[in-house]
Amino acid sequence: MAESLKDVLKQLAQHQISVDDAADRLAGLTISDLAFSKVDLERERRTGYPEVIYGEGKTVSQIINIMTALKGNGQNILATRISKEQSAGILKQFPEATYHAAGRCLTVMLNQPVPTDSYIAIVTAGTTDIPVAEEAAVTAELYGNRIKRIYDVGVAGLQRLLANIETIRKAKVVIVIAGMEGALVSVVGGLVAKPVIAVPTSVGYGASFQGVTALLAMLNSCASGVTVVNIDNGFGAAYSASMINHLGGKNGD
Amino acid sequence: MAESLKDVLKQLAQHQISVDDAADRLAGLTISDLAFSKVDLERERRTGYPEVIYGEGKTVSQIINIMTALKGNGQNILATRISKEQSAGILKQFPEATYHAAGRCLTVMLNQPVPTDSYIAIVTAGTTDIPVAEEAAVTAELYGNRIKRIYDVGVAGLQRLLANIETIRKAKVVIVIAGMEGALVSVVGGLVAKPVIAVPTSVGYGASFQGVTALLAMLNSCASGVTVVNIDNGFGAAYSASMINHLGGKNGD
Amino acid sequence: MAESLKDVLKQLAQHQISVDDAADRLAGLTISDLAFSKVDLERERRTGYPEVIYGEGKTVSQIINIMTALKGNGQNILATRISKEQSAGILKQFPEATYHAAGRCLTVMLNQPVPTDSYIAIVTAGTTDIPVAEEAAVTAELYGNRIKRIYDVGVAGLQRLLANIETIRKAKVVIVIAGMEGALVSVVGGLVAKPVIAVPTSVGYGASFQGVTALLAMLNSCASGVTVVNIDNGFGAAYSASMINHLGGKNGD
Amino acid sequence: MAESLKDVLKQLAQHQISVDDAADRLAGLTISDLAFSKVDLERERRTGYPEVIYGEGKTVSQIINIMTALKGNGQNILATRISKEQSAGILKQFPEATYHAAGRCLTVMLNQPVPTDSYIAIVTAGTTDIPVAEEAAVTAELYGNRIKRIYDVGVAGLQRLLANIETIRKAKVVIVIAGMEGALVSVVGGLVAKPVIAVPTSVGYGASFQGVTALLAMLNSCASGVTVVNIDNGFGAAYSASMINHLGGKNGD
Amino acid sequence: MAESLKDVLKQLAQHQISVDDAADRLAGLTISDLAFSKVDLERERRTGYPEVIYGEGKTVSQIINIMTALKGNGQNILATRISKEQSAGILKQFPEATYHAAGRCLTVMLNQPVPTDSYIAIVTAGTTDIPVAEEAAVTAELYGNRIKRIYDVGVAGLQRLLANIETIRKAKVVIVIAGMEGALVSVVGGLVAKPVIAVPTSVGYGASFQGVTALLAMLNSCASGVTVVNIDNGFGAAYSASMINHLGGKNGD
Amino acid sequence: MAESLKDVLKQLAQHQISVDDAADRLAGLTISDLAFSKVDLERERRTGYPEVIYGEGKTVSQIINIMTALKGNGQNILATRISKEQSAGILKQFPEATYHAAGRCLTVMLNQPVPTDSYIAIVTAGTTDIPVAEEAAVTAELYGNRIKRIYDVGVAGLQRLLANIETIRKAKVVIVIAGMEGALVSVVGGLVAKPVIAVPTSVGYGASFQGVTALLAMLNSCASGVTVVNIDNGFGAAYSASMINHLGGKNGD
Amino acid sequence: MAESLKDVLKQLAQHQISVDDAADRLAGLTISDLAFSKVDLERERRTGYPEVIYGEGKTVSQIINIMTALKGNGQNILATRISKEQSAGILKQFPEATYHAAGRCLTVMLNQPVPTDSYIAIVTAGTTDIPVAEEAAVTAELYGNRIKRIYDVGVAGLQRLLANIETIRKAKVVIVIAGMEGALVSVVGGLVAKPVIAVPTSVGYGASFQGVTALLAMLNSCASGVTVVNIDNGFGAAYSASMINHLGGKNGD
Amino acid sequence: MAESLKDVLKQLAQHQISVDDAADRLAGLTISDLAFSKVDLERERRTGYPEVIYGEGKTVSQIINIMTALKGNGQNILATRISKEQSAGILKQFPEATYHAAGRCLTVMLNQPVPTDSYIAIVTAGTTDIPVAEEAAVTAELYGNRIKRIYDVGVAGLQRLLANIETIRKAKVVIVIAGMEGALVSVVGGLVAKPVIAVPTSVGYGASFQGVTALLAMLNSCASGVTVVNIDNGFGAAYSASMINHLGGKNGD
Repeated sequence: MAESLKDVLKQLAQHQISVDDAADRLAGLTISDLAFSKVDLERERRTGYPEVIYGEGKTVSQIINIMTALKGNGQNILATRISKEQSAGILKQFPEATYHAAGRCLTVMLNQPVPTDSYIAIVTAGTTDIPVAEEAAVTAELYGNRIKRIYDVGVAGLQRLLANIETIRKAKVVIVIAGMEGALVSVVGGLVAKPVIAVPTSVGYGASFQGVTALLAMLNSCASGVTVVNIDNGFGAAYSASMINHLGGKNGD
Repeated sequence: MAESLKDVLKQLAQHQISVDDAADRLAGLTISDLAFSKVDLERERRTGYPEVIYGEGKTVSQIINIMTALKGNGQNILATRISKEQSAGILKQFPEATYHAAGRCLTVMLNQPVPTDSYIAIVTAGTTDIPVAEEAAVTAELYGNRIKRIYDVGVAGLQRLLANIETIRKAKVVIVIAGMEGALVSVVGGLVAKPVIAVPTSVGYGASFQGVTALLAMLNSCASGVTVVNIDNGFGAAYSASMINHLGGKNGD
Repeated sequence: MAESLKDVLKQLAQHQISVDDAADRLAGLTISDLAFSKVDLERERRTGYPEVIYGEGKTVSQIINIMTALKGNGQNILATRISKEQSAGILKQFPEATYHAAGRCLTVMLNQPVPTDSYIAIVTAGTTDIPVAEEAAVTAELYGNRIKRIYDVGVAGLQRLLANIETIRKAKVVIVIAGMEGALVSVVGGLVAKPVIAVPTSVGYGASFQGVTALLAMLNSCASGVTVVNIDNGFGAAYSASMINHLGGKNGD
Repeated sequence: MAESLKDVLKQLAQHQISVDDAADRLAGLTISDLAFSKVDLERERRTGYPEVIYGEGKTVSQIINIMTALKGNGQNILATRISKEQSAGILKQFPEATYHAAGRCLTVMLNQPVPTDSYIAIVTAGTTDIPVAEEAAVTAELYGNRIKRIYDVGVAGLQRLLANIETIRKAKVVIVIAGMEGALVSVVGGLVAKPVIAVPTSVGYGASFQGVTALLAMLNSCASGVTVVNIDNGFGAAYSASMINHLGGKNGD
Repeated sequence: MAESLKDVLKQLAQHQISVDDAADRLAGLTISDLAFSKVDLERERRTGYPEVIYGEGKTVSQIINIMTALKGNGQNILATRISKEQSAGILKQFPEATYHAAGRCLTVMLNQPVPTDSYIAIVTAGTTDIPVAEEAAVTAELYGNRIKRIYDVGVAGLQRLLANIETIRKAKVVIVIAGMEGALVSVVGGLVAKPVIAVPTSVGYGASFQGVTALLAMLNSCASGVTVVNIDNGFGAAYSASMINHLGGKNGD
Repeated sequence: MAESLKDVLKQLAQHQISVDDAADRLAGLTISDLAFSKVDLERERRTGYPEVIYGEGKTVSQIINIMTALKGNGQNILATRISKEQSAGILKQFPEATYHAAGRCLTVMLNQPVPTDSYIAIVTAGTTDIPVAEEAAVTAELYGNRIKRIYDVGVAGLQRLLANIETIRKAKVVIVIAGMEGALVSVVGGLVAKPVIAVPTSVGYGASFQGVTALLAMLNSCASGVTVVNIDNGFGAAYSASMINHLGGKNGD
Repeated sequence: MAESLKDVLKQLAQHQISVDDAADRLAGLTISDLAFSKVDLERERRTGYPEVIYGEGKTVSQIINIMTALKGNGQNILATRISKEQSAGILKQFPEATYHAAGRCLTVMLNQPVPTDSYIAIVTAGTTDIPVAEEAAVTAELYGNRIKRIYDVGVAGLQRLLANIETIRKAKVVIVIAGMEGALVSVVGGLVAKPVIAVPTSVGYGASFQGVTALLAMLNSCASGVTVVNIDNGFGAAYSASMINHLGGKNGD
Repeated sequence: MAESLKDVLKQLAQHQISVDDAADRLAGLTISDLAFSKVDLERERRTGYPEVIYGEGKTVSQIINIMTALKGNGQNILATRISKEQSAGILKQFPEATYHAAGRCLTVMLNQPVPTDSYIAIVTAGTTDIPVAEEAAVTAELYGNRIKRIYDVGVAGLQRLLANIETIRKAKVVIVIAGMEGALVSVVGGLVAKPVIAVPTSVGYGASFQGVTALLAMLNSCASGVTVVNIDNGFGAAYSASMINHLGGKNGD
């Protein structure tokens, strides 16, 4: 498009067309023609955040195709929800990739980001919440964030949480990950004065409804300062947390 | 915006700026600057369809303010979900308005549209569905459609429907409105070869869940050619039906 | 228990115990002792209806154990929700059993019931509803009912239903089986003046929610005279229909 | 229609038209013309059951209009869900009407039906279920059924039920009405060998969800022989029960 | 019944009837006749717990009728869900009654129960949960329990809970009452080694769904030793807690 | 039926029977006899649209049987929801069939329809929505529609949509297919003045509830002119779109 | 922590620091430091109840790791939701473990608890509820409770329940386990004067919604004295029942 | 507590007690005693954020009592969900209070906070979302944030949004408020690279389910960087946004 825009301008500069003709021809370009480059620049600015591939339901060859394209652009690569089976196939073609089994993620780091001074605290209620936490951890590190993991500090044993509360308080933003009734979110939200991003997990059975109960509980948290993402969405929580963690800080915008 | 675009072009034509400078300055205009006029024209073309005011939850004075603005533009006015109480207040200020009590609508007709030759059949299962049907009817007529009403032909008395089936078949598009189990939609859909737009209504009690049962039933209709709108959304059904009814016909695009 | 009751009475008659002692000892019998025989007689009367085994989730050996016990009592046997795999294992041990593949049922007929003159009409909307219909058919026949099958007469092709409506009307009770939006129930209910038992099936996809939509639609049928059973419950519909079909008739009570 | 059919036949008989012409002209009659009379006769046969007016959401004058039309046909009249306020207005115009306050019904009896020998047992769990039970009772009596009321015999006090179980057992069909968890249905279904029609009521609070819990419980009853109608649908239960009660009996078909 | 049983026995003792006749005549008594007295004794034993009237939806005169009957039996009276309006009408007729406005309960104490040594802790998350807590408190006291109130100790301010934890730990049984996300239940359940009965309340808005979120969260509590009652069911929680509090203690069985 | 009708007429013409007899005998024909041919003609007219087989849950031999019957009628064949495994078995017997793997459809084209001049735009939000889109595409082409595919233009990257908006605007009807939150529907609906048929897909996880969230979002679209079909129902959307696309055009009715 | 606390105190006692310094340094200890030991003692007191491993979703090696740690502490071990496959792997390493196949539990008993005199009655409606009941039974026995099993006494055959009612009445606390409509809970709750803990099971199909119907029904039980745990949560019911059974008794606190 | 801690330390320093005694007595202090002051300091730090009163369901006198207490502490006061009626009563007693009718909030500003340089953008889809937006606006300003309002820019008219996109992009954090299908969130999330907090509103009808559809749609947004709060929770969104807006900036921590 840039060319066609410049073409019009050049013809105008060379008096081959009048100002009105130029305006008409520019008007003849569709919104999308005009808008595209602008938005595109915006996209480029954002792609300091590397592109992300959601792996579930994709074949190994589909994933490899996208990865090859991204690598061609010199971008870091993050693929989430990658099973062990998928990873095996991918690693054959991308030996430089790293598979993070605990978080079911795969990364290719072409450029190592400089981590922030401030850190994101990633807190889980139980050990079964760890896959979601690790998806968040890998995501946050890829986006250049220092992180601290505080796992298995659910409220049924409050002393485990209290033993770690100072570490959580000193974070710039806190991700709290819990299934079942998700009560950890409200307790953490009541103890720290930082933004808390809550991730409900599908951990539980019966009336946990694959995470719906935790989701609803978190949306109704009696603690202020809590926002919520979709069930098991460790990536999304880390993406938002990274945006917040970079605000106004040394490595932020 | 057109001005600022032309300003740039004029300066280029007068060699006050280079082609590159012009491209830069055009790029400096935001998307919205560029996109606005284009989209706006699109909106203007669409406003052959008069603006619509959703009256529920608005005060009489809020409605009158919007109506005054629309009238200033010389547009026909349609306000839906207007209670009898609201209408009384409005009619004092807009004596030229007409209140359609059965459909809880209010219209001001500044320009009378020429109705289509083809017609929209508006079919209801029961008499309690009539308010939704009349909202559809008023909307369709405002948008310049001929309509035929076939009311109270629910499947519990199939002969009532069969007695009117030819009228329904000859329509260009059919709106079927039903509450409870919404079975009328499937029966009509099986008997006519025209697009059927189904409107679930909140008629019923107990496990009708204010129209959810009818909505779900319609989405699962065993008859092909059925699409569905929100519960009680007579306006939306008529809007879509009007678009379809105007396609390729004498008054269509 | 009868013995212990008689024991007490005999001792009283023989003046071995006083009236008060007898009353005390009878009072010493728990409710259940007293109630048991009475209820039991009731149960025996009902077991003109053979016992039924729900096969889902039971192992072949568990089913065979129950069947062996029932056979020892000289009862007809009906096992529902029996997979082809289960049936193979059972038939090895019970070569006299019959597997009804279409209805996923297995029967052992020790006593052939005399069928009723009146019949139950079993009506389905589609061919995918047939497994539920056949479960109903096998059940109804086992309980001594004449049945007529009218399959695949869904309302999307109303002529198929109308072509069979007289057969349905002459039934003493009608079972209507449908998935998706279940509209067939209302149409049949509006055309016949006999009790209609509606069976929603889990046929459908998306917003059919495994039969919930059909269930809700049937509960909200605009036709009077319709009652509903659980999703896919062909057995339950036939059980109720059999009770009704035997009322006041030649083979009824 | 009968006239137009006869007109054609007469013209044929008088040789004014040929056989082919007659066939053509009959074919020219729409389905509905042909079907109407036939279905209509069917409807007439059914209207041994008087027409029913659902009063909720209708104005007094709307109800009176329908009642006047029905009275003109010499039919008995049943209006359900009539509030005390509505009844006052109606009784001014229809002094011959009777308002059944407990069942929120209004009847006009032009012809007194001969009640059946067999009876319908109407059983409730609590006293708050009585409005639904009385709607059923009034309906059943209007349709010529003998009924017996057994109210307030919920399972929390099992002895109340057991004290009445013989009366329930001797009914030809049983209506069981309960809110909350609806357990009464399963207990009655296990103790009697007659068709049981279950009516969930909106009695309860919190997780009773206005009758949904009772509805679901009844659909999942472990007792065979149970069918279910919509929440609070006393009329529908009585309509089906009346059909069953009239089968094969002195006053049945 | 006892009489009729004894009558039979006496006639047998006096040789007016044979043993077989006696057995036959006893068999002629229905289950309910036999079972009634037995169950009734059980009921009498339970009525150490005074009868309870659920006031919602009852008229003042209905409530007064029941109260008059209970008073005739010399029983303490508890009426729950009594509005201020209802109480005014009742107090005119029952000046000896006490209206507990905070818990929307009304009591008439004819016999003052001796409270237990052990106590029930009643804990709420917020001040808006207090009506449910007071319903529980009035109920528990009526049933002869010592209680301690710990209100407004929700987890958003954990120090409020910790400041009272010893009082909660020393209770024999704990009732925890919370709306919104109900996290207080899990925190208390993790800190105390006593049975916890959780009461979700309808406090909250939006996705709290009138207490459903709290209910689900409590059912999924990660703390062991928690059981749950219906939304807003302060009475039910206190009834169960009273049973537990009386077990094995000075006033227990 | 026509024969029996003519038989009666002939006998009347030959004075073998009276007019009244003829009327009686015609009345003796059931509704279905009379109605069948009429409806059937209607069905024939519709079968310009080839019959469709829903493959899910059918065996290969069941599908082949239906296909053989349709082929005998000289009809084009469309089978939807055909797995790769099913297709292999079918293609052995129907080597003339084409399997459309992307859309999980199988077609046999005996008569090639002439495509319309106007076209249907098929728009998807993501690449995972493509199977549903291809089901729609194959269906639409089979029914004689020109189509244009605009895939992977979800709103998270608005420039992709804007770059294609003119193509979408020039369509006669637009199918928009999206999972997750389905926002694409509202954006397209706001930008084009043509009927939009929205297809929610089961793409997503957690609180997407297998497409329910997208379905609800589409039903509540703030853009007018949108109607909705069942989740993943690419066939149904194309069927309705085809009806609309043929209205009033060169190849329409 | 105790050490660091004592260190500060010793330095103060030796006048190495002032009172204010000591207070400052104690204040410098975080909440968790201070709180930990206190809570910990609490936890120790509770661990008279052995630790529990929830096996679902854990690998054999994960489970063995936890078991090894617990064994090192000399604790009894309970692992719930252990499949037969998991148990095989575990038993190789822990030959002293016992696998309870019916309850899908695995235990290692290092110290045999002295069972209570009083007992817990575990009651099921059907045979398919037994896995949940056995999970409860194994749990209760591990925690030192005498138990009595009363299985397969659902209300469809009330005599089975009545025959066992005295055994249930004499229990100190009753666990009632049922799927489908869960009516057994209300009947038992009405017949016994002891705390009833209800466990809904996922037994059923269609509108049982994997136990949700039973759960809702139990929450709405018309019998007082009933509390509820999550679907299939046999462990949780037994844990609460054990707490109650130990209250005030010989082996209680 | 500080006193009692110091008392122990003083006695130790004066050798009135031994180190072990001191440790014992400190251990004798409950968790809460120890923990309270620590947590309290934390609370004090947070109360730079003034206390908030949720007004719904509170009486005027209850609200005034809380306000009087807060005023005594010299704190700014924010009361949300205050109706016009409530405000009238409050203003009589608190003439210094300001009622923000559009946001249904009431504030008393004792200390004027210095607003941040960076700002929060508050964006709504429609005019009916404004009450929620104004609740957010009042909250954010009270907490010392500069804000910009961009109202009524829903996606049905995309040009309205594009015309304001630069203002939104330059915000430090964005609050997007929408009802119906909530599509605005995804479009904004795709166009800006800042944290987006989404607030679903209860605006809509039928299948909008009082905001549930918008809530679900937002949780499933295809745009990264979006987190969600409860329906209509303008306060909560502003609270989180304020935390983020103060991070690392001139007025932040």
